[in-house]
Amino acid sequence: MNGQSTLPGWVDGPARSAVLELIQSVTTPGDSFVPPSERIATFDNDGTLWCEKPLYVQADFLFRRFVAMVKEDPQRAKEQPYKAVVEGDREWLKDIYAHVPELVKGVTEAFAGITTDAFDAAVCEFFASAVHPTLGVPYTQVAYRPMLELMELLKAHDFKVYICSAGGRDFVRAVCEQVYDLPRDRVIGSATTLEYRDGDLYRSTGVEQPLDDGPGKVIHIWARTGRKPLLAGGNADGDIAMLESARFALLVHHDDAEREFAYDAGAERALAAAKARGWTVVSVKEDFRTVF
Amino acid sequence: MNGQSTLPGWVDGPARSAVLELIQSVTTPGDSFVPPSERIATFDNDGTLWCEKPLYVQADFLFRRFVAMVKEDPQRAKEQPYKAVVEGDREWLKDIYAHVPELVKGVTEAFAGITTDAFDAAVCEFFASAVHPTLGVPYTQVAYRPMLELMELLKAHDFKVYICSAGGRDFVRAVCEQVYDLPRDRVIGSATTLEYRDGDLYRSTGVEQPLDDGPGKVIHIWARTGRKPLLAGGNADGDIAMLESARFALLVHHDDAEREFAYDAGAERALAAAKARGWTVVSVKEDFRTVF
Repeated sequence: MNGQSTLPGWVDGPARSAVLELIQSVTTPGDSFVPPSERIATFDNDGTLWCEKPLYVQADFLFRRFVAMVKEDPQRAKEQPYKAVVEGDREWLKDIYAHVPELVKGVTEAFAGITTDAFDAAVCEFFASAVHPTLGVPYTQVAYRPMLELMELLKAHDFKVYICSAGGRDFVRAVCEQVYDLPRDRVIGSATTLEYRDGDLYRSTGVEQPLDDGPGKVIHIWARTGRKPLLAGGNADGDIAMLESARFALLVHHDDAEREFAYDAGAERALAAAKARGWTVVSVKEDFRTVF
Repeated sequence: MNGQSTLPGWVDGPARSAVLELIQSVTTPGDSFVPPSERIATFDNDGTLWCEKPLYVQADFLFRRFVAMVKEDPQRAKEQPYKAVVEGDREWLKDIYAHVPELVKGVTEAFAGITTDAFDAAVCEFFASAVHPTLGVPYTQVAYRPMLELMELLKAHDFKVYICSAGGRDFVRAVCEQVYDLPRDRVIGSATTLEYRDGDLYRSTGVEQPLDDGPGKVIHIWARTGRKPLLAGGNADGDIAMLESARFALLVHHDDAEREFAYDAGAERALAAAKARGWTVVSVKEDFRTVF
């Protein structure tokens, strides 16, 4: 399994070795063997599996919808989060964690009352035409190739691979098969509340609690799988709980300004935890032979 | 697929034929073909997959715990639901839907503050010794053999089979592999809220909303699978929404007082809906060659 044909997009360094050793140890009969039913792997999405800069893919999707909503009803331009988006207020938009209530309101209002199928269609329409603002390729092509290889390798070793996103579950589901070769039931994420009536499901204006972020990730993973992860991958502070609940933790470090983006903001505590707990840090610059 | 070796526990009648035709039609290339990723089958548990009389299996588990709690703190004997259980108040216990708030309080209090692993161990301990009060066998042996055969047949045709129980998700998970040969991630159900701290998950005193009953079943199935079921099986009024959301619906009718229990209570609306909508009704008396 150590040959170059395995994980070809990874540099043959300590991160690649640690991952291969973990897979080898849990699949080889002996004391460290873990039965397939317990091989759960969970990956954060934004910044771990695909590029999250200069803005979250889902933020681009939502902001386009906000612009359309303001066109329909110009009064909206006076209230947040619509105001910031139509005015291009970078200062307001820079720290989305400072504006969670307004953004959650926007997110739920933007697609309230439509069916889950209609939402799925709206997401597919976005992905069919939207292009990453700096990479210049469709958003369906901004996943990290080494991470796709890792997911395939885990699947080949009977791991059940899940995406565990703080973002919208049903947003990721619209492209999980195309981008990640994962079925829809392997996407865990945050969600608006749903209502069932007349044989169909409608998006409501509430938000399912807890959000799939921080400790909520561990709770969601348990709710979905009945287990804690054997392997977890993340990149930000919101992934700390998930990573510490896993037997093997991997933290993607964005340190490659040339091929991607270099930033530690929002990952300071995660990087410190990785050091303290001996998690495997994956440097985009040093460990990824190819990025996309 | 129509030979006697397929679904041997079923009488060769209209219900068996309808199920076999459905499986044949969605797996044969052509207009009716459904790709494996969309083959979701969901089954209610109590009364659909295993015996729910004279009391729910989980009620037996909880009531034993209630008795132990009263021993620890005799004051509890004055309040419901503990009072009814220790006094054997059949009248109070007969209609559990009339006492949902008290019972939910009891359910959450009974195991509040323990880890999910400790709860799992408590459930396993119950199943290791508890015996069905009239059938005289361990509860792990009260699943309907024809339904187990149907689940195996669906799995062999690349269906993803889920249990969708109004009862406790984590209760069923403790025995899903042993009883149903299903992994823990295939159990959907109601749940107490959970808290994550210090690397572990603890049961809290809240109840996750919505309950996995009635319209909540369709919402839970979507949250877990990102789809509506292709095939759904139920037996009671709480299954109506799930059944109407499915392309093929199967309703187990308990009409065999000799080999099991005969009752329509709690299934009156479901039986009427089955008639009105042409769902496949499975008579325990007429369609099951063997019951257990």
